[in-house]
Amino acid sequence: MTQGTIHGVGLGPGAQDLMSVRADRLIREARHIAFFRKRGKPGQARRIVEGMLRPDIIEFPMEYPVTTEIPLVDPRYNDLLSAFYADCTAHLDGLSASGEDVVVLCEGDPFFYGSFMHLHSRLAAPVRIVPGITGMSGAWTASGTPISWGDDVLTVLMATLSEEELARRIHDTNALVVMKIGRNLPKLRRAVEAAGKQDCAWLVEYATMADQRITPLAEATDVTAYFSILLVHGQGRRP
Amino acid sequence: MTQGTIHGVGLGPGAQDLMSVRADRLIREARHIAFFRKRGKPGQARRIVEGMLRPDIIEFPMEYPVTTEIPLVDPRYNDLLSAFYADCTAHLDGLSASGEDVVVLCEGDPFFYGSFMHLHSRLAAPVRIVPGITGMSGAWTASGTPISWGDDVLTVLMATLSEEELARRIHDTNALVVMKIGRNLPKLRRAVEAAGKQDCAWLVEYATMADQRITPLAEATDVTAYFSILLVHGQGRRP
Ligand SMILES: C[S@@+](CC[C@H](N)C(=O)[O-])C[C@H]1O[C@@H](n2cnc3c(N)ncnc32)[C@H](O)[C@@H]1O
Ligand SMILES: C[S@@+](CC[C@H](N)C(=O)[O-])C[C@H]1O[C@@H](n2cnc3c(N)ncnc32)[C@H](O)[C@@H]1O
Repeated sequence: MTQGTIHGVGLGPGAQDLMSVRADRLIREARHIAFFRKRGKPGQARRIVEGMLRPDIIEFPMEYPVTTEIPLVDPRYNDLLSAFYADCTAHLDGLSASGEDVVVLCEGDPFFYGSFMHLHSRLAAPVRIVPGITGMSGAWTASGTPISWGDDVLTVLMATLSEEELARRIHDTNALVVMKIGRNLPKLRRAVEAAGKQDCAWLVEYATMADQRITPLAEATDVTAYFSILLVHGQGRRP
Repeated sequence: MTQGTIHGVGLGPGAQDLMSVRADRLIREARHIAFFRKRGKPGQARRIVEGMLRPDIIEFPMEYPVTTEIPLVDPRYNDLLSAFYADCTAHLDGLSASGEDVVVLCEGDPFFYGSFMHLHSRLAAPVRIVPGITGMSGAWTASGTPISWGDDVLTVLMATLSEEELARRIHDTNALVVMKIGRNLPKLRRAVEAAGKQDCAWLVEYATMADQRITPLAEATDVTAYFSILLVHGQGRRP
């Protein structure tokens, strides 16, 4: 029997019609889908494909065992997550061995800070990746302003970095994208101020989704969604 | 009469089915399309949509007046390009004023180092942007390896920067994307070597297109295509 393929499929930033034609076809034809979610939540990836699935679809929700209960530095955090990814992988490898294809739904682009990467590095089954529009592309499109021109340097940072490193790198770039903000917003704000860019920074929440919101950082409160991105637009060469 | 809308539509990295469902619809329904190309060439954006257009389509190819004949530092370069963009804008604004919608075909994502940005900043007509999968997403997907993990820093550079600045920034990042390589490859190679990353750098040419090619930088010749991207993959945290 031929092994099934595990497809890591990028869904794009949120609006359903921003997934690729290839992704759209794979999802509508799928017998098996898998997706990550927090316990007790529907999951953003699953929500994006609502209404597209076959009536006889078989769903495999992969529920994170921890998210914020255990601090990131606790060694148990790593062990728990690692065991979780191994379990998910075993299930997907099993489906593949029995000849089934599976579409794994991935927010944005699968190979850009994506959770699927942790399965990809473990899977024995054949894997194919469909790239997607990233959340940051959704964010700068929502902002109405190009992110980078000419030979602008673009830096992509995670707000989980230290305040010092954030400030240094925010100072030393033309165009900026910061992701994974959430509870790190007060720290990020201090770093942006230390870099002198507080007046040109924008916070984009839920880019391309129904509740999209764009706020100058200076006017934003200290609370923000998981789906939020900070932008500073480049000002490079333009004839 | 209502003004027509100018749509800046991202086509993605090259494969036709990697454009978004929204882009696909807009292109198939368009009465007017516009796209940049070099004189005497069909144009990559136009090539991507081959076979998708209405039989009564009206095409507006925008031919660059200069590409390599005049050096970038020559002040005439800027004047020529600026007048060219103004002419293109006038034509599109005219179509909009007469009630026509126009789809402008953009490689990758329109707001990410894109030529359409030079029209966008000049247009009086209403504009809508459809984001796209970037060339770099196509490139790291082609490489078969995720570009960034955990809190990796990702830096996007243009090979048009000085060798010194390239070397400094290539040294000071976890994950790296370099675009606009072409004739800058020898300089870029020296910068990658100065940063000690020659053994983990990959050159991806024509990502997701028919002639896609992936070469370790160490094995690449000094000649590369316009559509080529250099990658160094991040090695960040992974449970
Ligand atoms: C684990 S990363 C996944 C990134 C994803 N693979 C991509 O290509 O965009 C999650 C982060 O992506 C960002 N993000 C993704 N989509 C977004 C959207 N539509 N609006 C705002 N932020 C988004 C947020 O910063 C969030 O913390
Ligand atoms: C003017 S920039 C336009 C970038 C485009 N807007 C995007 O989102 O990728 C042109 C550069 O993009 C890169 N590029 C775009 N698509 C590519 C592809 N499919 N393969 C390799 N390089 C590509 C090359 O480095 C090229 O020099």
